[in-house]
Amino acid sequence: MDAENEQQAAPAETGGVQQRAGLSRRAVIGWAGAGVAIGAAGVGTVAAATMGSDTPAAAAQSQDVPFWGEHQSGISTPVQDRLHFAAFDVITEDRDALVKMLKEWTKAAASITGGREVGGGAVGVVPQSPPDDTGEALGLPASRLTLTIGFGPTLFEKDGQDRFGLKAKRPEALVDLPKFKGDRLEANRSGGDICIQACADDPQVAVHAIRNLARIGMGVVNVRWSQLGFGKTSSTTPDSQTPRNLMGFKDGTHNIAGTDADGLGKHVWVAPGDGQDWMTGGSYLVARRIRMTIETWDRASLQDQEDTFGRTKIEGAPYGKQKERDAPDLAAMPATSHVRLAHPDSNDGLMILRRGYSFTDGTDGLGRLDAGLFFLAYQRDTRKAFVPLQTKLAASDKLNEYITHVGSAHFACPPGVRKPGEWWGQTLFG
Amino acid sequence: MDAENEQQAAPAETGGVQQRAGLSRRAVIGWAGAGVAIGAAGVGTVAAATMGSDTPAAAAQSQDVPFWGEHQSGISTPVQDRLHFAAFDVITEDRDALVKMLKEWTKAAASITGGREVGGGAVGVVPQSPPDDTGEALGLPASRLTLTIGFGPTLFEKDGQDRFGLKAKRPEALVDLPKFKGDRLEANRSGGDICIQACADDPQVAVHAIRNLARIGMGVVNVRWSQLGFGKTSSTTPDSQTPRNLMGFKDGTHNIAGTDADGLGKHVWVAPGDGQDWMTGGSYLVARRIRMTIETWDRASLQDQEDTFGRTKIEGAPYGKQKERDAPDLAAMPATSHVRLAHPDSNDGLMILRRGYSFTDGTDGLGRLDAGLFFLAYQRDTRKAFVPLQTKLAASDKLNEYITHVGSAHFACPPGVRKPGEWWGQTLFG
Ligand code: HEM
Ligand code: HEM
Repeated sequence: MDAENEQQAAPAETGGVQQRAGLSRRAVIGWAGAGVAIGAAGVGTVAAATMGSDTPAAAAQSQDVPFWGEHQSGISTPVQDRLHFAAFDVITEDRDALVKMLKEWTKAAASITGGREVGGGAVGVVPQSPPDDTGEALGLPASRLTLTIGFGPTLFEKDGQDRFGLKAKRPEALVDLPKFKGDRLEANRSGGDICIQACADDPQVAVHAIRNLARIGMGVVNVRWSQLGFGKTSSTTPDSQTPRNLMGFKDGTHNIAGTDADGLGKHVWVAPGDGQDWMTGGSYLVARRIRMTIETWDRASLQDQEDTFGRTKIEGAPYGKQKERDAPDLAAMPATSHVRLAHPDSNDGLMILRRGYSFTDGTDGLGRLDAGLFFLAYQRDTRKAFVPLQTKLAASDKLNEYITHVGSAHFACPPGVRKPGEWWGQTLFG
Repeated sequence: MDAENEQQAAPAETGGVQQRAGLSRRAVIGWAGAGVAIGAAGVGTVAAATMGSDTPAAAAQSQDVPFWGEHQSGISTPVQDRLHFAAFDVITEDRDALVKMLKEWTKAAASITGGREVGGGAVGVVPQSPPDDTGEALGLPASRLTLTIGFGPTLFEKDGQDRFGLKAKRPEALVDLPKFKGDRLEANRSGGDICIQACADDPQVAVHAIRNLARIGMGVVNVRWSQLGFGKTSSTTPDSQTPRNLMGFKDGTHNIAGTDADGLGKHVWVAPGDGQDWMTGGSYLVARRIRMTIETWDRASLQDQEDTFGRTKIEGAPYGKQKERDAPDLAAMPATSHVRLAHPDSNDGLMILRRGYSFTDGTDGLGRLDAGLFFLAYQRDTRKAFVPLQTKLAASDKLNEYITHVGSAHFACPPGVRKPGEWWGQTLFG
């Protein structure tokens, strides 16, 4: 797919926005250095009509991830550095209002993932109106921003109510997750009717995206909870350096690579015949906020830490082997080690695509760091992936000495929006 | 000062640590690509003795900010991208234990700001012990990490108690901040006996630093509160692109430049004769957690937004002028505009060095973004800088329609640690 052409086509769909002659992020990047004066003090800002959003700066351009496609971006996309994840409650009963918002979201998402403003154009041409875009990402490149949408179980049915006539379309795979052993779930960090996963190499870009979607959704959705992630903990690009989680271990060594079409087809993308047709090409997302009791972990011996995973700390090598990427000898690992329990060979070949981030949300009332892993996993069928795996880990994993699951959510992420004019959720609502 | 020599000298002071033959972050960076096997499965990790911490990778090296010097780094240092700020309560009454910790902190700080591990060496050589360093920054460069320490009023005197025999040394400038109009301060985001400001271009590096200091301080200090900042909102480097705050405005346009020795001497560094001698070369830090009511702001018209600051949104030009860096005509700005009120010409020339960061800490119970500006300002005498300025702003600033101060703290940041062997707080405790 020719990403750039697709993206440049997008604004044409947004209804004459280009005629509004705005100053786009790309144009700012391209021109700011030249010192072009565009402020007209006291009367708002009149942007030069020649500086439309199709004047991309070369540098920014290379940082776009294509928005349009068969699958949503942000799943097999190489993991970006930062995350802002938001779960929304739908606060209207009006299905049309919801659909209208999803269409507006799609346009906005196409715009900002392409490094343009919401509205495709200027932050300020009409002094009497609030700007279309909140502006804090002006001058920043797209930073590989991806926006991925998902629909939670409660969108289909809540308290026995078929809220939007979607009940019959709820996929069987979108189960209510069972209560796992040790779960200490907090309601205000769990659930949600809709989620947006925003990933970017710059947190300001990810935050800007969520904020502007929340703003567009005013009156239709409310943010239920949100989570910032600051250090990716999983890699989907096996040839780059594996990032470390807050326990100091390499995380993402054995994962489904974004380039592994076979693995993605087998374990991640919903295939025709899997269940609800509208999900074909989509994926199921499980999000878990997992707190680490950092203080206890930091007092554990190195031996104990390594026994927890069955891998060495510095190199990340499996027990009995030398290098991080050596094939593991599961029998050489402690029976309760995380990797031995989670490895496909111990689970009839099951794999999930992990895409989590570290978080630190200050300290709790007891002076302990509120930190851990915001676990995100994509899969073709949650019933056959996260549920059995987590049931097993919750029962036996040595890692449980140091972690507690405090938040949980489950979403059906529809297939990609293939071209301008289509919209998020069209296969479900359309 | 020859920063690199100073830094390489540091480990010698740390008591034979280099003999422990460890694998440093720099060595990891330098060697990881070569695929050198260093894991010895099941028996901990034996690092090659040839790979000491004096094998720096060229790339990482250029990312060190000198730790030793007349002034602490992290004040006039060009603002890094990320912040982790922690305020600690001292939980012991034992002055010696506190001094011992400050010495250990200094060694650790010199090590990690230089891109090395805590302990100067290996994450794991003794399987039976917890690793000296928690390890999550292994493989990451120093990322311009700076660590800046400050002492709060309560360290000198708390509930009438002279806790550590420091009461007579409390600087007069380290006032208990008055309650300003509109303040809605939360106790669990305010105060603290000691603070550490960790700034780095990589949040994992900043978080790693605070965590390891907290760990070293176990039994002596507890984290009282901490704050993550993800987008710098002030620039101290006038020639680079000015960052934008969460209101979408350029922030830091008119600030004290890190290279402006005159301005720093006049407004930031405590001079001989200013008061307590132990503070000469130091600076006073005010930290304010300022929440923005983003939802209200986002509904305000562009005109209203620009009137709030007296500057245009996109370009950041002062009213009546064309370019961001044009000298402002204060009379052309609304009387209640933030810039008109805060500009030195309206305040007998007073200036502060602003070094704040944006924050987003998820959402509050009402579905509103808990976001804003974590305001950090350095000054030579708080009584003549922040206090009068904030008194005025609190009374008249149009910006108050959109912000609330919810956290507040004040610290005396001592001068720099000039060379290995000296330690943080030595001029106060020594
Ligand atoms: C705070 C919680 C967790 C931490 C710190 C953690 C950490 C790790 C680490 C360090 C590895 C080894 C390196 C690698 O191959 O990526 C790993 C592997 C893995 N983890 Fe986790 N993990 C956590 C939670 C989970 C959960 C909740 C699941 C699924 C229910 C999970 C599933 C897996 C899988 C499938 C592997 C790959 C095993 C293999 O194929 O070798 N992890 N994890
Ligand atoms: C959320 C709160 C705040 C926001 C969003 C904010 C934003 C801004 C902006 C956009 C500017 C203009 C650009 C610049 O020169 O940097 C500015 C300038 C300034 N602000 Fe703030 N500010 C806030 C709080 C404060 C506070 C609490 C103080 C001090 C008590 C302060 C002191 C100043 C000063 C001294 C200037 C420079 C004025 C000049 O010399 O032109 N600000 N601020």
